[in-house]
Amino acid sequence: MAGETASAPREGVLAGEPLRPAPPSPALFLALIAPKLDAVEEVFRASLASDVPLIGEAGAYLAGGGGKRVRPALLLLASRMLGHDGDEDVTYGAVVELIHTATLIHDDVIDHADLRRGRTAVNRLWGNHRTVLLGDWIYTLAMQMALSHGRVEVIRRLVGATLRMTEGELLALERLGFPGLTRDEYFAIIDRKTARLFAAACSVPALIPPARPDADRILTRYGEALGTCFQLVDDLLDFTGREEELGKPVLSDLKEGKLTLPLILLLPRVAAARRRLVEQVLEDRDFTRVAPEQILELVRAEGTLEEVGELAAQYAASARRELDPLPISPAREALELAPDFVLYRRS
Amino acid sequence: MAGETASAPREGVLAGEPLRPAPPSPALFLALIAPKLDAVEEVFRASLASDVPLIGEAGAYLAGGGGKRVRPALLLLASRMLGHDGDEDVTYGAVVELIHTATLIHDDVIDHADLRRGRTAVNRLWGNHRTVLLGDWIYTLAMQMALSHGRVEVIRRLVGATLRMTEGELLALERLGFPGLTRDEYFAIIDRKTARLFAAACSVPALIPPARPDADRILTRYGEALGTCFQLVDDLLDFTGREEELGKPVLSDLKEGKLTLPLILLLPRVAAARRRLVEQVLEDRDFTRVAPEQILELVRAEGTLEEVGELAAQYAASARRELDPLPISPAREALELAPDFVLYRRS
Repeated sequence: MAGETASAPREGVLAGEPLRPAPPSPALFLALIAPKLDAVEEVFRASLASDVPLIGEAGAYLAGGGGKRVRPALLLLASRMLGHDGDEDVTYGAVVELIHTATLIHDDVIDHADLRRGRTAVNRLWGNHRTVLLGDWIYTLAMQMALSHGRVEVIRRLVGATLRMTEGELLALERLGFPGLTRDEYFAIIDRKTARLFAAACSVPALIPPARPDADRILTRYGEALGTCFQLVDDLLDFTGREEELGKPVLSDLKEGKLTLPLILLLPRVAAARRRLVEQVLEDRDFTRVAPEQILELVRAEGTLEEVGELAAQYAASARRELDPLPISPAREALELAPDFVLYRRS
Repeated sequence: MAGETASAPREGVLAGEPLRPAPPSPALFLALIAPKLDAVEEVFRASLASDVPLIGEAGAYLAGGGGKRVRPALLLLASRMLGHDGDEDVTYGAVVELIHTATLIHDDVIDHADLRRGRTAVNRLWGNHRTVLLGDWIYTLAMQMALSHGRVEVIRRLVGATLRMTEGELLALERLGFPGLTRDEYFAIIDRKTARLFAAACSVPALIPPARPDADRILTRYGEALGTCFQLVDDLLDFTGREEELGKPVLSDLKEGKLTLPLILLLPRVAAARRRLVEQVLEDRDFTRVAPEQILELVRAEGTLEEVGELAAQYAASARRELDPLPISPAREALELAPDFVLYRRS
């Protein structure tokens, strides 16, 4: 399966609408775990209820705001693949989504975001101060829920991923607006910021007894590769996505001062006048002196979106390959489909 | 001992310099645990080291910033009283100080604080965004360290206290600038914001094997009462302290919109014109229309500082009384001294 799809994403992620294949149906990927994913949604929603007024209101708003639930879905599929009964995985699925949610809302404070998933961002509705405390509360709640089955190894894994995630955010913040960000720095950031929580989500089921150190290693590597692919595609979608699908304007990253791989690859290759266009947006943090279309033309001309798409496809293929040593099962097949889902997604 | 000191704090906390007794020497309170407190300091400092540039710099700044280390000291004394060998308590001592530190720096973001412990606040040096992420990192690091001995009960206790603390902050934020804050609301806030972490710090040693459910209950109640006393005194010091001892200007709470017990008791008793003075500061969040001295005169005339001092002394006495069922030992005596230390402190 890896061989069949490794060359496809070029069109998938990048080409114009007519040539763009539809992403694989989420139904294929999710069928095996649909009831459990509903249960995660229920636990997630219930956990955000509180008699503290702000938590109750903002929690209901967050719970109703959609989201792809990629991390819980991966966790549930890995759990299914390992043959776990019971609902422990549902708890951990809700926990990874809570951790992800807390990160997003603190990110939105930091980025002064107006929109998140097409709706007004929490910080715009409740203010930065409440949002900081709400994020603290959600992080801590996630830890409390992660403890509910008394498994030290699980919470250790999740706490470690959260720590790396915060470090990734801090490294990114240090480099905000800096046009000299290197490819290595970029990968160091996305590894911590995104890949580690994917790896934790995928591997947590291997820590539920009977512990499966072999599956732990495989699923950790699978999650790392898939998370890296996810972030590369995220960064590509900032160039190629459509506002109504993304729920935010294109080139939001650049406008916020974040240089991502397509431009990191491009800058050393183009003349100073063209580099200057990118630098101006990084300086201004808006598109008054440079139009978004000028940046899009630049990357189209240089072909770095295709390069990054290729790289994302390689990470997707490498994630799939990690699963080879595991016995074939419907859940393994669904995990093999997940990279395509990540690669072809439009939002 | 309780009887001897229960009536003393009136002068201690409140009276002018000449009549004000010196607080009991910290040496009395700390002698038994001095080497362990040094070890906590070392673990605290080392834990804040990081190769992520901001964390390293801000961590060193925070570690060098002093602080009374009240929570670790109580934890170590409780541990000593229960006869624990080993250094597990040192880890947890550092953990409670890390949790406290994370709260402070997020608080300072929220309060737009300029000063903390007489030095420039972290948010003023590194900006709000970095400080939000730094706080997240320190919270998560604390959880990671709390896990290092694999005790689910300990981390559960600390996570629970952190959750309540964040709720207390949110409740306080909801009521910021509100002149109608009731005494019940005030106590609901300080219970969550302060008393719960004191209770957790004091009771964690009872969770180290052999578990001591009797001591757990006693130390939890002791910590709750002492934490409440601590916060009442904190709120009093905002009126009675001196800027050079507090490290921040007097009446900072009121200026930030926080109504505390001395004014909550006062407002319903005075005429509208006097109430208006307090309300104006709450509205303006500065002392342009009303001078600090006018507020201080108001509380002096009404005597509510004395009332709150009396209440703080009652909580101190009740904390001491909780220890009665435990066998007499030097560590128990030091824990009996702690409420005086809290009550008579000047900063």
